[in-house]
Amino acid sequence: MRILEVEANRATKCRILLGESISRLKEYCGGRRTIIVADPMIVKLYGEKLKGFEIVETGMGEEEKTLETVEKLYSRFLELGLDRNSFVVGIGGGIACDIAGFAASTYLRGIGFGFAPTTLLAQVDASVGGKNGVNYRGYKNLIGTFNQPEFVLCDFELLKTLPPRQVSCGFAENIKCAAIANRELFEYLEGKGEELLKLERPVIEKAVYDSLAVKAGIVARDEREQGERRKLNFGHTLGHAYEKVLGIPHGEAISIGMVAAAKLSVRRGMLKQGEADRLENLLAAVGLPTSAEASKDALLDAMLKDKKREEAKINFVLLRGLGDAQVVEMGMEELEALLG
Amino acid sequence: MRILEVEANRATKCRILLGESISRLKEYCGGRRTIIVADPMIVKLYGEKLKGFEIVETGMGEEEKTLETVEKLYSRFLELGLDRNSFVVGIGGGIACDIAGFAASTYLRGIGFGFAPTTLLAQVDASVGGKNGVNYRGYKNLIGTFNQPEFVLCDFELLKTLPPRQVSCGFAENIKCAAIANRELFEYLEGKGEELLKLERPVIEKAVYDSLAVKAGIVARDEREQGERRKLNFGHTLGHAYEKVLGIPHGEAISIGMVAAAKLSVRRGMLKQGEADRLENLLAAVGLPTSAEASKDALLDAMLKDKKREEAKINFVLLRGLGDAQVVEMGMEELEALLG
Repeated sequence: MRILEVEANRATKCRILLGESISRLKEYCGGRRTIIVADPMIVKLYGEKLKGFEIVETGMGEEEKTLETVEKLYSRFLELGLDRNSFVVGIGGGIACDIAGFAASTYLRGIGFGFAPTTLLAQVDASVGGKNGVNYRGYKNLIGTFNQPEFVLCDFELLKTLPPRQVSCGFAENIKCAAIANRELFEYLEGKGEELLKLERPVIEKAVYDSLAVKAGIVARDEREQGERRKLNFGHTLGHAYEKVLGIPHGEAISIGMVAAAKLSVRRGMLKQGEADRLENLLAAVGLPTSAEASKDALLDAMLKDKKREEAKINFVLLRGLGDAQVVEMGMEELEALLG
Repeated sequence: MRILEVEANRATKCRILLGESISRLKEYCGGRRTIIVADPMIVKLYGEKLKGFEIVETGMGEEEKTLETVEKLYSRFLELGLDRNSFVVGIGGGIACDIAGFAASTYLRGIGFGFAPTTLLAQVDASVGGKNGVNYRGYKNLIGTFNQPEFVLCDFELLKTLPPRQVSCGFAENIKCAAIANRELFEYLEGKGEELLKLERPVIEKAVYDSLAVKAGIVARDEREQGERRKLNFGHTLGHAYEKVLGIPHGEAISIGMVAAAKLSVRRGMLKQGEADRLENLLAAVGLPTSAEASKDALLDAMLKDKKREEAKINFVLLRGLGDAQVVEMGMEELEALLG
């Protein structure tokens, strides 16, 4: 037998443009034929600023995050005659970015794409890190790829049209990034509940920049979620379960999930009660719920179905302190016992 | 505005195991839960050697290379409870490898996979280089990703059950690799028509190894087909058109496409007539057709629809000599004129 090795290296660079204006989008599309993927609401709100682009409209909402929607995009791309030099920009919340990113990543084995997220949650979380995909048979993000956009244009002006509840949801991800890896950011945010809720510019800019810096560092070291990147799932294992069982928005569910994970950390003797309390207080200060009534069985069942499980073990993210997370492999039984 | 850069590097290594036996497949699956994706014919032929594996059967044939088939695989993966540590092995011809590779590359944003190609064409071509995908609305490989398998196990014993026409088809890709980048291999093959058709071991082993070495080198330098990798499309631009218009097997169509591309190279003054003749003779010596009657309009129409076009230009691969290819950007008009 002879063995031949084929090596392939793919280096990608994503530029996050914080505080850029969506009116200047064209400058980042490099003269390529550019198609915008957005939902009708975005087109209505920002159509004026997007003049000159071809726009493909998609449906809104988690229920549209399906292979059927992606297939509709393939068909439109084909009808429009997009080729390998064409470029796609997803504009909207996390769902729009996820769908547009997956379609672009698989059309012609991948064409270039960028994002202009219009919600705080998408700016802080969904658009950065190269995860994309759709739900399948009720399983969140079961189908997708890891593939970074060329750029993420974060226009803070767009956030002013968001309802307050959505703004609060975005802060869940900021606080998550601070809690797992940046104690200084956590302490900065602790005093700034009001400024955050008012979307005051320097505070928002620091909150988003520092959160993304945490995420960018982790992604650069572990793009495909083999190890350290799992820390970014802090609050998500339980959070996804709450989201599914109670049908509440992602940011609110993650907030509840983080408080629960902090409590588990205290119960395991890893985290001081005082630090868990500070996390709970900060989340409450930005308008997020910190607990909810849900059947323990329903939560465990939802977690068992969560795609991040590996056999009967779950990689659960706990805190050793504010700004210091640890991934712990936990059996479902231990988790059940800790949930008490 | 502040700019944050996120870098991600993905280095992948694919091991091609030439002359290994499929009975030893398990050794390469690293103790992971392994699911085999294969068509019923493969299961019938090699089921004995694959005992102990879970097998998911798929349909056969180009008409099965669709998103619907991939969705069926997602459903089966889900029912079987595959997780991120699970492993998929595609066994069969190029179509089976393409489908299994795409499903594995997008399930849970990508789980590990390997191939055991059972046709010469798939051993030499389809399984190596990380291209996978399915057809969409009649367009070949419109949907897919670039993602390398962990290994490609080439068991030469399996080739003995192939019908002679399929064996000949495989040589089209060997000869292509020699013609674009390895003159020594080309000259070696020139005297070996009979041994090749009899699948004599040392000759086959050198033919496959050297062809794959050509391909591996090119892929390592240009995984995503931005430049040099286009050379591997030698014979394919016209070949795909013949395949579509005449409904002939891929290898035969590529053979005709290579002869046509060599003729264009001569007409353009790049290649000597004698070298074009040698290419034609070698293809004929391994039982491949070198020309076919087809309407020029139908061919041009099929090429226009071929996904590799970029705007109105085509990246056409021509020869400067045996073992020396060049990618030329050509307008459809020039191509039409050259086709005479």
